[in-house]
Amino acid sequence: MDSRNIRLAVIPGDGIGTEVVAEGLKVLEAVGTKIEPTHYDLGAARYHRTGETLPDAVLEELRGYDAILLGAVGDPSVPPGVLERDLLLRLRFEFDHYVNLRPVKLFPGVETPLADTPAEDIDMIVVREGTEGLYAGTGGVMRRGTPHEIATQESLNTAYGVERVVRYAFQKAQSRPRKKLTLVHKTNVLTYAGDLWQRTVNRVAQEFPEVTTDYCHIDAASMFFVSQPERFDVVVTDNLFGDIITDLGAAIAGGIGLAASGNINPERTSPSMFEPVHGSAPDIAGQGKADPTATILSVAMLLDHLGLHDASAKVEQAVADDILERLTGWAGRTTHEIGDDITARVSG
Amino acid sequence: MDSRNIRLAVIPGDGIGTEVVAEGLKVLEAVGTKIEPTHYDLGAARYHRTGETLPDAVLEELRGYDAILLGAVGDPSVPPGVLERDLLLRLRFEFDHYVNLRPVKLFPGVETPLADTPAEDIDMIVVREGTEGLYAGTGGVMRRGTPHEIATQESLNTAYGVERVVRYAFQKAQSRPRKKLTLVHKTNVLTYAGDLWQRTVNRVAQEFPEVTTDYCHIDAASMFFVSQPERFDVVVTDNLFGDIITDLGAAIAGGIGLAASGNINPERTSPSMFEPVHGSAPDIAGQGKADPTATILSVAMLLDHLGLHDASAKVEQAVADDILERLTGWAGRTTHEIGDDITARVSG
Ligand SMILES: CC(C)[C@H](C(=O)O)[C@@H](O)C(=O)O
Ligand SMILES: CC(C)[C@H](C(=O)O)[C@@H](O)C(=O)O
Repeated sequence: MDSRNIRLAVIPGDGIGTEVVAEGLKVLEAVGTKIEPTHYDLGAARYHRTGETLPDAVLEELRGYDAILLGAVGDPSVPPGVLERDLLLRLRFEFDHYVNLRPVKLFPGVETPLADTPAEDIDMIVVREGTEGLYAGTGGVMRRGTPHEIATQESLNTAYGVERVVRYAFQKAQSRPRKKLTLVHKTNVLTYAGDLWQRTVNRVAQEFPEVTTDYCHIDAASMFFVSQPERFDVVVTDNLFGDIITDLGAAIAGGIGLAASGNINPERTSPSMFEPVHGSAPDIAGQGKADPTATILSVAMLLDHLGLHDASAKVEQAVADDILERLTGWAGRTTHEIGDDITARVSG
Repeated sequence: MDSRNIRLAVIPGDGIGTEVVAEGLKVLEAVGTKIEPTHYDLGAARYHRTGETLPDAVLEELRGYDAILLGAVGDPSVPPGVLERDLLLRLRFEFDHYVNLRPVKLFPGVETPLADTPAEDIDMIVVREGTEGLYAGTGGVMRRGTPHEIATQESLNTAYGVERVVRYAFQKAQSRPRKKLTLVHKTNVLTYAGDLWQRTVNRVAQEFPEVTTDYCHIDAASMFFVSQPERFDVVVTDNLFGDIITDLGAAIAGGIGLAASGNINPERTSPSMFEPVHGSAPDIAGQGKADPTATILSVAMLLDHLGLHDASAKVEQAVADDILERLTGWAGRTTHEIGDDITARVSG
């Protein structure tokens, strides 16, 4: 980065989104980066006020930022899927966030629901494709509401789209000690798409002779996440399988309160977007109950993406230290208090 | 059933399939049913010998049986997917096995990988649709092998197909103490199919006023299977989500060695097919290492389906007792020995 301020668009969104984003920003400021945040009130409130989810003018404005920090979108008062599709997924597609990067890492001190699993056994990173597959939104319905209704969904997969995310995943694997890449798909049933994914992995593998490649069906992978998570180092998979397996990953790594993600455009032709994996959790919104850690870890990913590696490492270390301390003093801390504690550590 | 013998088609298949089916048949005979088994050598060996997976004449012959017991199909020597699609999935589709019934139940005495989870918290049944969705096999590829390749897969969902499986699931829920049905889908992204599934559940729910209905996205459901399995009683879901979630279910309920399944045609217009959820496991085939319990529990489902409820209960109880005893004496029993032990219990 040059010495100008980093221009950050902030979309707190709905429910606990606003609460956790506030803590994320606090940490971001405390770690000493020159960040210039601008808030956008996209989400349920604006939708009700104006009927807008993501106006084209706002989309174009967002394009000018260095990065986006998003809390969570979705509210029971809005028809299901509207904010998810027209706001969240639209941002991912318009800004070509073809890498949806989701670390699954058990921090020492966090209780995993898996019995007898040492922290070092759960340390992988899922590279989820973010712009294709069943998320393309194509499909249709005929004779809706009649006994003869037929509804279809289409998974669209292109060599262009698959190859770029597979290459990114190989690069990630290459940079990690174990250098192992596992393709997760369902090649025995989704034969056309599976064949494209498998051939692409085989071809790109030749550029990375040090990386070991493996394959696992999505059903078996779900099982292995629970029974043998140590099998996985870098996982590359399509949009829908990645959606499923990263929530499962969050569960085994101590819960959705700790799961961070980056929607990344590696070529930086548009701003990347960082967000906790969790949703807006309207049931606990406004009560200070949300754990801001997932957002703070997403801030660490954001810093890393912007080349601010030291600041990123500092935030991640502060989180790790904070988590270790939970072993003795977690009970009852509010969203603010966790944010304050981590802020104190990065400022120190 | 009338007093004639039950005509059972047996497809041991590949790998450990043959080993576990032998034990299943032993238990079936010992429990005193009048079963007349006929073996079919479908699977990898026949494919290599004759190039056939499921000849039409054999398919028609199978149609005449009362039920089918299948071990497992698949072998590394056969191109991936060929036996799965042309044999296993073809049977499911041709015999209209629209209910793929998969209990997820933690037997007391079984170690679950989930810490601090009492056995009674894991007791659900997944009703997976078996004849539609992404398993339809439709889709295609264009410009294969070029940088401009595009590969598609289509999920086909019909009101007819969804309604019948949803109604079956409601009936199941109605018959269970908790009377709770959870639809698992991804309605916020798969909007056409999700809408059909959700509307169908809402409509059929009116026929079952005692059943509580719930909804859960597939990603959240994967998380809850690990963190709060007690949320689920009966789960109804589509073919692919059901595939994923039942392997995850097997993992939390003590492993794939115990997971049974029935591919059911409730109207009995064709034979239903019972099989363990596990695959052919070529890596441990022929070594007596496979646990035949999943097959024996599938035999219990088969008996139940044929109306032989007492025999079914007897087999299930024998398995439960055998499992309890594992707490003290499991180590080192072979496939045969487990089969013998359970056989002794049902004969007693
Ligand atoms: C909200 C939803 C559309 C989204 C997705 O399916 O990608 C979420 O589950 C996620 O994983 O970020
Ligand atoms: C072998 C495969 C085609 C099959 C499926 O996907 O249905 C298996 O995973 C299962 O769950 O029975």
